[in-house]
Amino acid sequence: MASDLRPPEHQVAGHRASTDKLGPLVDGTGLFYKPLQAGDRGEHELAFYTAFAAHPAVPPRVRDAFFPRFHGMRLLPTPARSAGGEPYPHIVLDDLLAGIPSPCVADVKIGACTWPPRSPDAYVAKCVAKDRETTSALLGFRVSGVRVVDAAGADVWRPDRSELKGIDAAGVRRVLRRYVSTGGGDGIDCALAAKVYGGEGGVLAQLRELKAWFEEQTLFHFYSASILFGYDAIAAAAGGGGGGGAGVRVKLVDFAHVDEGEGVIDHNFLGGLCSLIKFIDGIVVEASEKSASGAS
Amino acid sequence: MASDLRPPEHQVAGHRASTDKLGPLVDGTGLFYKPLQAGDRGEHELAFYTAFAAHPAVPPRVRDAFFPRFHGMRLLPTPARSAGGEPYPHIVLDDLLAGIPSPCVADVKIGACTWPPRSPDAYVAKCVAKDRETTSALLGFRVSGVRVVDAAGADVWRPDRSELKGIDAAGVRRVLRRYVSTGGGDGIDCALAAKVYGGEGGVLAQLRELKAWFEEQTLFHFYSASILFGYDAIAAAAGGGGGGGAGVRVKLVDFAHVDEGEGVIDHNFLGGLCSLIKFIDGIVVEASEKSASGAS
Repeated sequence: MASDLRPPEHQVAGHRASTDKLGPLVDGTGLFYKPLQAGDRGEHELAFYTAFAAHPAVPPRVRDAFFPRFHGMRLLPTPARSAGGEPYPHIVLDDLLAGIPSPCVADVKIGACTWPPRSPDAYVAKCVAKDRETTSALLGFRVSGVRVVDAAGADVWRPDRSELKGIDAAGVRRVLRRYVSTGGGDGIDCALAAKVYGGEGGVLAQLRELKAWFEEQTLFHFYSASILFGYDAIAAAAGGGGGGGAGVRVKLVDFAHVDEGEGVIDHNFLGGLCSLIKFIDGIVVEASEKSASGAS
Repeated sequence: MASDLRPPEHQVAGHRASTDKLGPLVDGTGLFYKPLQAGDRGEHELAFYTAFAAHPAVPPRVRDAFFPRFHGMRLLPTPARSAGGEPYPHIVLDDLLAGIPSPCVADVKIGACTWPPRSPDAYVAKCVAKDRETTSALLGFRVSGVRVVDAAGADVWRPDRSELKGIDAAGVRRVLRRYVSTGGGDGIDCALAAKVYGGEGGVLAQLRELKAWFEEQTLFHFYSASILFGYDAIAAAAGGGGGGGAGVRVKLVDFAHVDEGEGVIDHNFLGGLCSLIKFIDGIVVEASEKSASGAS
């Protein structure tokens, strides 16, 4: 197994593994290995996965549809320079993009606040500054990474982190439109909007199902977590409408700052999620109006 | 008109007018006079009322049901020591509690963040500290004031500001239960929960209608605004179920920090509103279960 380990080709956010740096790995059999984060973050994320996997109040449908399955911990060999070559603990999860031949991916960090309320002051100040520099405070979410490939799997668009960091609300709208475009270059045609965002099984339908759970659940507060979107460029280019046919996936990831809900809903995540839904819904409506006027 | 001006008896939050301090006044004919706040807050609030009153995209039903009607500005004589006795500008609004003989009132400031994202750093730091000291950050709202009277209009419960400031999630739940209780003293019986919170025209139905608007509206972001609840202790004590019979009112107030929405929903207000709905829904469910088990 270990011999096939490699950095995931379609990683769009977070630290990337290399010959001298720890980073997530995949093994080609559908598993994803995330190195335990330093300090208490790693332990915290591990504790979340353990609690979440066993929690009787989490609906099985929500767990299966929207969260990566947790497969425990594993010690893996590490790049020599980063950790002295010693085996390092990794959280083992489903590879969320496994089985998608040409995955187009977006990582959207949800919530206007990325800090759990009981964090130390200095950490809060750092997060507030970042939430205001990015679109988090204004939109309730920010785009952390995105990658669009063509049906052959070749990169069409993969902005680097600094490019995404500086964008405003209009920029976010452009990114979300380009994520479902096939135009190449700067051509933003939203040709796949109806297929990927719309329809049964599409992003919007999945986000709305997730929203219904967030209106009720008071178990966890997902500070600084992301929603990872994926679809298959090949399936999306082929016939058939609706997200179901485009291999659309909508999954929550990154749980190093999850707090216990203590009977209160996650108003911060829910608010950001509603904002994201509104953005994506706007794109679907616009695309369908455009295609209707084009057809008439 | 001016001769009948007096501080509203049922004010539960904000500065109170006195012989030497500016504060809101009512005139007994159904109008409420709010002194223009210092600095740019007053101008900002006035600009909001002006824009909101005329905005073609605000549904008339939302404007009429959930906002005080704006009647312009008026110069009113001031207490001598506070402003040199010079006439001072007041925003003229509907008195939201007019026509309720024995009003029970609660003021709930909505949103985990009370600061518009583009505020100066020092103001943000001050607000973040307060949002964390109170329940805002944790619950997405905080109770700023509450007053419960009996059918004769006599105070049953009127905690002072310091008492409300220190409360946690459990304390907020207790306040919201006591707001619909007739027990007197510490007796929290939730006897009016079904009538005030539940039913057609009740608080919950009104909050859900408001929520539907907030899921769509991208015109304004209501930072630091409150929802004011009112019901009539006399009507609530009389027969008939559902909030409609208890003279329930649910209104937004305090618009000194409203921001333009610029095409983005008010995720901060919406998240806090959903959290408040969940709290109140929990009280209604609990009260109905209790009354069902008591009846069997």
